[in-house]
Amino acid sequence: MTRRSSIAPIPPGALDLAGDAVRRRRLLQGRMLERIERGGYEEIIPPTFEYAEVFVRAGGDEVADRLIRFLDLDGQLLALRYDFTASVARLAATKLSDRPTPLRLSYAGKVFRQDPAREGRRPREILQVGAELLGAEGAAADVEVVRLALELVRCADVREFQLNLGHAGALAAALAALAPDQRAEARRLIDRKDAAGLAAIGGGGALQALPFVIGRREALDRAARLAPDATGAIDRLRAIDAALTDEERRHVVYDFGEVRGLDYYTGVHFEIFAAGAGAAVGAGGRYDDLVARFGRPLPAVGLALNLDALADALP
Amino acid sequence: MTRRSSIAPIPPGALDLAGDAVRRRRLLQGRMLERIERGGYEEIIPPTFEYAEVFVRAGGDEVADRLIRFLDLDGQLLALRYDFTASVARLAATKLSDRPTPLRLSYAGKVFRQDPAREGRRPREILQVGAELLGAEGAAADVEVVRLALELVRCADVREFQLNLGHAGALAAALAALAPDQRAEARRLIDRKDAAGLAAIGGGGALQALPFVIGRREALDRAARLAPDATGAIDRLRAIDAALTDEERRHVVYDFGEVRGLDYYTGVHFEIFAAGAGAAVGAGGRYDDLVARFGRPLPAVGLALNLDALADALP
Repeated sequence: MTRRSSIAPIPPGALDLAGDAVRRRRLLQGRMLERIERGGYEEIIPPTFEYAEVFVRAGGDEVADRLIRFLDLDGQLLALRYDFTASVARLAATKLSDRPTPLRLSYAGKVFRQDPAREGRRPREILQVGAELLGAEGAAADVEVVRLALELVRCADVREFQLNLGHAGALAAALAALAPDQRAEARRLIDRKDAAGLAAIGGGGALQALPFVIGRREALDRAARLAPDATGAIDRLRAIDAALTDEERRHVVYDFGEVRGLDYYTGVHFEIFAAGAGAAVGAGGRYDDLVARFGRPLPAVGLALNLDALADALP
Repeated sequence: MTRRSSIAPIPPGALDLAGDAVRRRRLLQGRMLERIERGGYEEIIPPTFEYAEVFVRAGGDEVADRLIRFLDLDGQLLALRYDFTASVARLAATKLSDRPTPLRLSYAGKVFRQDPAREGRRPREILQVGAELLGAEGAAADVEVVRLALELVRCADVREFQLNLGHAGALAAALAALAPDQRAEARRLIDRKDAAGLAAIGGGGALQALPFVIGRREALDRAARLAPDATGAIDRLRAIDAALTDEERRHVVYDFGEVRGLDYYTGVHFEIFAAGAGAAVGAGGRYDDLVARFGRPLPAVGLALNLDALADALP
């Protein structure tokens, strides 16, 4: 038998951590789980692999290609955990179906995602901490989760950070007025902030102007003037703004140009950016349709922080 | 498109934890990592999946069938982490090759194992905490790891527990004297404590009697009389016994009938049993040949605790 070379590499995109990289992540995870627990959230530990269908059911068909999939002994298709939210929804609808609402669940661990076009050369393992509030549909639940997100990033000792808050309903009417094949193109143009492209596609004032509205409280007034049919979305953001403290509001920017995750989120949604981090350090939002796909209709809003990105942002 | 039923099961053998099951494991993990860190061990976070060959190189061919394996995008064979020791050895020989010895590394997380004959119906995910001491070959290193194992189980508040301590060298000469095909059979007979079978296979007094020697310090004297060619192994166990405190010694039983892991261990090896736990709550030992398979000859001794079994044993 010939032995291979003694050099043992790791697969592309795998996280192989030692020393300070581990200490930073453990510190962040410990602080955050403690803070989340104080908020009344109960930690769950879902499986590392589930039936692939669970993640596709939660995240849509576009998730299927980004799963790390494999066949089980019985021929069923499994996947490594793509996100915790799918497992949270499955648990809330099955094992925890007798729990009263609101139900507050939290988690810490890895998610696994790959981009086949890049052959796994980007990180395929991401360390997350997160929390989900299920069974509460009001603005108070949105405020609770936005506030928790701000506190978690603050307790990480990140110097400068910003939470970009949008609402899936703001552009919903304008996008629904387009032909189906134009909608995907419009989203791509919004994501690229391509004003000329959006003008060419037509579709009315809201679609032309709203994606470029970003700012503090006054942005909500501008948005209301530009998109009179987005009143519900803008009123929800106003209610959140009114509930935040001055210190919290200092970190919040209203952003009507964020269209990623719009298949998923049904209400508010946000991303958190920090000085020194190459990627968003956190994201979250409201997903009122998701838990019902697992058999228990429950409105829900949640957040997940990316500990790898946060560790980079530490001083 | 037809949707599947809204009932979402989990794959056989997957761990799906909530409530008290999570609280117990978090509590145990936190206490243990704190204790291990105080001992000067540095935590690592290796990938959740590695090239399958890494685990086979560390654990031998019998490991191959127990891996949860899948093909990577580039056709390479990957496997979920079968044990942390393989990753520790790989890291010590590569990324941490410039670190001075002794090198103390620790970890917490899941390992993934399956028994194809049982179609994955037993747990395929196991939560572990562990520590490995690399670059120290003396009895003092064995004592450090045995002592750490005892302290970790004690800090879990397990009421009654016992560490069964053996030495791979005790039966080595007797087994080596057998024909190769008889060795595997002899081990099976020892594992089943089949005295008649062992008598039929022949092979001398040590093989007939030593596997049945189990007890406190006096068992070492009995073993020495039965197996004069196992002096090295027994002297090492005597040195460990002499270094332990009375309180530690109360939990230690010398056991010459343990043959599992004998391909792996080169010196002392142990299993820990606790009242109320269905499986061993921990195991460990010395594996002086393993790290060299990754390109850096380093003696090593380590331990891993099974948090799932320990959680069952909590009062």
